Amino acid sequence: MKIDGKAMRTIWPGADGRSVEIIDQTKLPHVFEIARIDTLEQAGVAIRTMQVRGAPLIGATAAYGLAIALLQNASDEAMTRACAHLLAQRPTAVNLRWALDEMSRVLKPLAPGDRSAAAWAHAGRISDDDVEACRLIGINGLALIEEIAKRKAPGERVNILTHCNAGWLACVDWGTATSPIYHAHDAGLPVHVWVDETRPRNQGAALTAYELGAHGVAHTIIVDNAGGHLMQRGAVDLVIVGTDRVAANGDVANKIGTYLKALAAHDTGVPFYVALPASTIDWSCDDGAKIEIEERPASEVLQMAGRRVGGGVETVDIAAPGSPAANPAFDVTPARLVTGLITERGITPSTREGLLHLYPEQRGASS
Amino acid sequence: MKIDGKAMRTIWPGADGRSVEIIDQTKLPHVFEIARIDTLEQAGVAIRTMQVRGAPLIGATAAYGLAIALLQNASDEAMTRACAHLLAQRPTAVNLRWALDEMSRVLKPLAPGDRSAAAWAHAGRISDDDVEACRLIGINGLALIEEIAKRKAPGERVNILTHCNAGWLACVDWGTATSPIYHAHDAGLPVHVWVDETRPRNQGAALTAYELGAHGVAHTIIVDNAGGHLMQRGAVDLVIVGTDRVAANGDVANKIGTYLKALAAHDTGVPFYVALPASTIDWSCDDGAKIEIEERPASEVLQMAGRRVGGGVETVDIAAPGSPAANPAFDVTPARLVTGLITERGITPSTREGLLHLYPEQRGASS
Repeated sequence: MKIDGKAMRTIWPGADGRSVEIIDQTKLPHVFEIARIDTLEQAGVAIRTMQVRGAPLIGATAAYGLAIALLQNASDEAMTRACAHLLAQRPTAVNLRWALDEMSRVLKPLAPGDRSAAAWAHAGRISDDDVEACRLIGINGLALIEEIAKRKAPGERVNILTHCNAGWLACVDWGTATSPIYHAHDAGLPVHVWVDETRPRNQGAALTAYELGAHGVAHTIIVDNAGGHLMQRGAVDLVIVGTDRVAANGDVANKIGTYLKALAAHDTGVPFYVALPASTIDWSCDDGAKIEIEERPASEVLQMAGRRVGGGVETVDIAAPGSPAANPAFDVTPARLVTGLITERGITPSTREGLLHLYPEQRGASS
Repeated sequence: MKIDGKAMRTIWPGADGRSVEIIDQTKLPHVFEIARIDTLEQAGVAIRTMQVRGAPLIGATAAYGLAIALLQNASDEAMTRACAHLLAQRPTAVNLRWALDEMSRVLKPLAPGDRSAAAWAHAGRISDDDVEACRLIGINGLALIEEIAKRKAPGERVNILTHCNAGWLACVDWGTATSPIYHAHDAGLPVHVWVDETRPRNQGAALTAYELGAHGVAHTIIVDNAGGHLMQRGAVDLVIVGTDRVAANGDVANKIGTYLKALAAHDTGVPFYVALPASTIDWSCDDGAKIEIEERPASEVLQMAGRRVGGGVETVDIAAPGSPAANPAFDVTPARLVTGLITERGITPSTREGLLHLYPEQRGASS
């Protein structure tokens, strides 16, 4: 996607062929800064400190981090050590493990002398595959937006609500939930996005609003409380969100608050779609009630970081002193509230049968 | 209610019989400070700058402000001028106009020499009437909490979720939504309150959490996104919220986001109650769709005020620079999602018939 007119990804190989560059997301939305990763250790820091975040981007960064490590030492032992180091940075991130397993699978059979070049090429392929999956999600989702635009007067805007950041900043390019939006915008459709703030970490107000604005997509930030009211008053045509995990029955785990928006969409007749690549489907999970919900630190609720007028970034206490807080990070939206899943293979009802129809190779595996 | 063990109201007459004292709510939750109102102008400032806020408390403050003005000059002309001055501070507040009309009705027939003492007495009565209405709401709502407690193991806590601040800080004492909670707590029932943060102005995290904590009621702050998930997982027994206006058909206008919690309660089978005094029912409003929703400044969404660690209160920018925001302040919860209304006369289904059954004197007026 574009930042101030210039096409970018969230990660790309440096001109020297020995490093990668990333957008430092810890500085967004207040400062746009590119960081350079020259060593395995720097790749680890980038993942741990969330200079890169979002499952697909973490995976790509780990793959490149391994490729950088192998430039120094491509022995079996060094490779194992490098993988362990990267994996330890965010041990629960599924894509991190997946990307390192995938790299190891390709590199292990090779002679050490051939590994470095192959690692570099394969890290590039992992990035490109993510871009391609997100691009296809966008093309499939674009059809939904075109259909809504056709029912409107020419030039009348199509209003899409999204929650959290399932944008290109969480991936390598395009994003998942945002990909249909970028495709529609680039095709000249008058899209406008209601951006849920997404407390407590504000990924909507900070990151989704930033990336939409930088690419030139019309958008408006709202507090998480406002979406239901906007749907009641006819101001939302479509909801598209991302997901952290889809159960085999179509239940959708996503950022806390997604369930409330799905309820409002259902109550007001607004279509509610979830965008995801196949890797997000957990075929081993029968239904969403079995998904464990991460409890995050209370400080995320009780404090807020922002930029002082004319000054630096500061963290302030925003709640009654001494009051405790709870901070469940995700919720599960029952499949019955989901109009459809937008995947790289097409759009399907959020049901076991719908999923198996798109991914027939799972029929044996999941039965 | 109590602050650090000491019983307080939000407003009370000074010992000199010529002033009133208030809790300065602009300083909460970080500093507890009492402010003194000696003049009409100070009463106006207290209302305008939200040292006092919440419809009932604004009404009581205006009544006392008029009584203070009449100490200097109790002529017809001075009384009219004082009322106009007070009314202009927050012209859309229904209770402000109501309290001043009520004072004028009582005072106009009196000789100027008798007005000051009568004004003082009647301002006290307006305060006391509000306390009594809130107390009765609490007693009626207490029955619901007792019923839930009976179904639990001894000592097992009753979990109540509330949104925004419909607490004693918005009234003179007890509050509306909080009154059943304080009654239950004072009766020794093990209540625990999930306090919705209530973006964008954070009245939940700042004021409701503060007043519950100061009175000793167990509570936990959550972001507005979290309530649905807690209901899904069985962690909420009852929702009680306040309201800014109830339409004659039982539709409920309240702080933005209330509708989302009502949907989640309905979806998960959690009882959803609204607490209010009769003055909040708008018999002239047929249904909630006709209620105009106030749009407030974008800065409330894009900025946040809080206390720096070890320092003063600071406002910080929390969103992507340049992104616009929308800020609807209220939403309307359809009557079908409301389990019941808790009023000073009892609990009723949120329907036209239910309301008229409690307030039969409106049968002629509203038909």
